[in-house]
Amino acid sequence: MDQLTVVTSARTQMVDITAQVQELVRQRGWAEGTLLLWCPHTTGALTVNEAADPDVARDVTATMNTLVPRQGDYRHAEGNSDAHVKTSLFGPALPCIVSGGRVRLGTWQGIYFCEWDGPRTRQLWAQFLPA
Amino acid sequence: MDQLTVVTSARTQMVDITAQVQELVRQRGWAEGTLLLWCPHTTGALTVNEAADPDVARDVTATMNTLVPRQGDYRHAEGNSDAHVKTSLFGPALPCIVSGGRVRLGTWQGIYFCEWDGPRTRQLWAQFLPA
Amino acid sequence: MDQLTVVTSARTQMVDITAQVQELVRQRGWAEGTLLLWCPHTTGALTVNEAADPDVARDVTATMNTLVPRQGDYRHAEGNSDAHVKTSLFGPALPCIVSGGRVRLGTWQGIYFCEWDGPRTRQLWAQFLPA
Repeated sequence: MDQLTVVTSARTQMVDITAQVQELVRQRGWAEGTLLLWCPHTTGALTVNEAADPDVARDVTATMNTLVPRQGDYRHAEGNSDAHVKTSLFGPALPCIVSGGRVRLGTWQGIYFCEWDGPRTRQLWAQFLPA
Repeated sequence: MDQLTVVTSARTQMVDITAQVQELVRQRGWAEGTLLLWCPHTTGALTVNEAADPDVARDVTATMNTLVPRQGDYRHAEGNSDAHVKTSLFGPALPCIVSGGRVRLGTWQGIYFCEWDGPRTRQLWAQFLPA
Repeated sequence: MDQLTVVTSARTQMVDITAQVQELVRQRGWAEGTLLLWCPHTTGALTVNEAADPDVARDVTATMNTLVPRQGDYRHAEGNSDAHVKTSLFGPALPCIVSGGRVRLGTWQGIYFCEWDGPRTRQLWAQFLPA
């Protein structure tokens, strides 16, 4: 099981990890198969969205913060229940198609780690299944 | 990597692609394994929901449009930030169980492409991993 | 294709199924690969979140019930459109990394079946792909 490290710098933030993921695929020589990325944290998640205009990640983060506000009818004593909800809405698992030695993404797609309760240093796990 | 084409006819719309997916599985002779469907677009996504009563897809779409309105505190200049948010909420990847030569779905389940910024012609990608 | 049974006791509820899933992996002797869990229902879903403090599952459920209320602009005659929306927001498919003979989860992670229209008896499907 491989690992990637992501350092976040704000409470909520989407970090583009596409280059890190592609570099892992290249280093391991994975050619054809599925790469399963897994976020082992409960206040962070994975998603795919536009990587060209940084305003998209800003808008997605801001909208999520409006949809699930930090203050609410929460009982969890750590005060980060909003982060737990956002984590379930985006999900911990991202299976990606690897073909021709790289993760195949649409023209505008990038892979993001979504920090919902940072800043923190996060680990992501990766498993490759050959086709 | 196989491709499916989906033509959408409205700005937001859920299109039942179950028959197209099952036909691809049949044509390729995939018997036992996982089919990974991938949406390479950043304003469209994949989901699974009831395919019997078309009001379900209508209700899901309408509720998503209420949850994430077209107008909001958005900076992305293209004016489709709502579509980007909805895309991350539903996700780009759908891994399905293939067994006995077809995608195994629950009695009421259908596979949907969710158009969040149409109408457009969309491509979906498919990769099969034998069990 | 293996099956797990989950009995729910409330209309909306997150049930921790981690022990059941790990027991299935142990019984089958699955060592290294991907376990794909699939929810064949359209008013229930899978997620991963904190399993240490039960208030987290309570807060996630309560927040989802606020975000997508039972009453709304719905046409589906069964009166459970909120459950269908929540199902698409969390998703039917959960691919997990199996390594060393068990599902690898983060320190605080547990696997949950999310009941959105119970109480009911539910089935979950499981497929293993060796690495």
